[in-house]
Amino acid sequence: MATAPKDHDVRGNVLPPPPPPLVGREAAPRRSPGEEARTLIAAQTVGALGTLSEDGHPWASLAGYASLDDGSPVLMVSNLAEHGRNLDRDARASLMVAHAKRELDQLAHGRVTLVGEVESATGELEDQARAAFLAAIPSANAYAGFGDFTQWVLRVDRVRWVGGYGRMDTVEATDYATAEPDPTAPTAAGAIGHLNDDHAEALLAMARALGGYPDALAARCAAIDRYGIDLEVETPRGHAPTRVGYAETVDRPDGLRAATVELAKRARAELGEAAPTAQNG
Amino acid sequence: MATAPKDHDVRGNVLPPPPPPLVGREAAPRRSPGEEARTLIAAQTVGALGTLSEDGHPWASLAGYASLDDGSPVLMVSNLAEHGRNLDRDARASLMVAHAKRELDQLAHGRVTLVGEVESATGELEDQARAAFLAAIPSANAYAGFGDFTQWVLRVDRVRWVGGYGRMDTVEATDYATAEPDPTAPTAAGAIGHLNDDHAEALLAMARALGGYPDALAARCAAIDRYGIDLEVETPRGHAPTRVGYAETVDRPDGLRAATVELAKRARAELGEAAPTAQNG
Repeated sequence: MATAPKDHDVRGNVLPPPPPPLVGREAAPRRSPGEEARTLIAAQTVGALGTLSEDGHPWASLAGYASLDDGSPVLMVSNLAEHGRNLDRDARASLMVAHAKRELDQLAHGRVTLVGEVESATGELEDQARAAFLAAIPSANAYAGFGDFTQWVLRVDRVRWVGGYGRMDTVEATDYATAEPDPTAPTAAGAIGHLNDDHAEALLAMARALGGYPDALAARCAAIDRYGIDLEVETPRGHAPTRVGYAETVDRPDGLRAATVELAKRARAELGEAAPTAQNG
Repeated sequence: MATAPKDHDVRGNVLPPPPPPLVGREAAPRRSPGEEARTLIAAQTVGALGTLSEDGHPWASLAGYASLDDGSPVLMVSNLAEHGRNLDRDARASLMVAHAKRELDQLAHGRVTLVGEVESATGELEDQARAAFLAAIPSANAYAGFGDFTQWVLRVDRVRWVGGYGRMDTVEATDYATAEPDPTAPTAAGAIGHLNDDHAEALLAMARALGGYPDALAARCAAIDRYGIDLEVETPRGHAPTRVGYAETVDRPDGLRAATVELAKRARAELGEAAPTAQNG
């Protein structure tokens, strides 16, 4: 097929479209692709390294990594290992990091590919790189002093982020370097469980008052981040995804709770509901 | 450092050596590197694909896969996606698959890199490849019929298996193709938990009678496979790994229990112990 390269939504033609919102509203803010990429990289310490073998073949291997303040990955690999020999010979490399969610369909979740060239860390950069690597992978203390291990910094030229089926974007290197990882990401999984287990009424109020679905029968939290909450809404017209945004961007790892309480209050006020008397944490 | 490329044990010089067995015995059989590689590939459906970008850069991406009877991976990728365009342009590829254990130190667990060239599946091969892929990744039914998806079969030329720190080997392509994935692998995690929770005495008897450690104080099952059990043994002289082998190779997914019961009986007979009266499952 002669088709121009473009992003591709594998679900678009297969599933019936979800019911539209009944109330227009401003789109809730969400993380930029650069922030998504930085957040994924910050969340993991193991990825897939792409290097070039002696015969020019691509070589994919498992590698631990840390990252510097600008998101540049730091690798510490033995130059006795194939990927280490490859980097010694040819600095071109790629690092793919995937969301570690242990769900059946990992292809539906986020991953990012960073492409660039590695630089052997020396002087002050070596100290920085080593400190970052040992903080991310403490077991590396067992071999960090060995003479055959090199610390490489991957200077990122190109970034491709895929959020799942149909969500993807290319990120400029400068946008990647300046974006901030979402500080709330480490607490998101716990918050999702807590909201769905104990605060179904608050989520329903958000969907009705702020999510554009006044006919919502139930709502679940599908994802949460520093900018707001992704909801999966059940309506008499079918299921729909929607999103509600926080009044202010959350800047602290432990800030999701206060922002979510504010959102729930705002939703209930909009609906003319009283806040629940029992204040569950 | 001018060192010839060779395998490298990152722990060898750091940790004190474990106490040696007090009783000599034949080494228990274990899976060959080819079997390890096939078992890893059979256990997962998502890996890291290495391809070559237009500018020759290595490109690492997430890809779902299945495998044919000879272990050749089958990919189904959109030729609108970067890795699909890469394969269209250059058939050289690499697939890295890692053990999915969600433990802190993934670098201590198994992974395998397959290297070769992809072939676009046509005719009978296309039917086989499609059936294998849809069996492994049922959600692919949503896009398997789309014209922009190609089914590729990776013809494996070279295999590198890493079992963790210090365990690694290169596998000949024919050994990989003819090796059998361990049929008991899907039940191994459950068996390990069951043995450690409910059969500590049997494990201890194995370590004392068959594992070379008559002075063992306790033993835990660290791994289990069709050929036997890896034990972590506590002795007054320190901790040591050992391995005990089954009388016969287990050929069925549900065969670990019977083989382990036989092993425990043999160990107890050797020690002159009676079998326990309560027969826990």
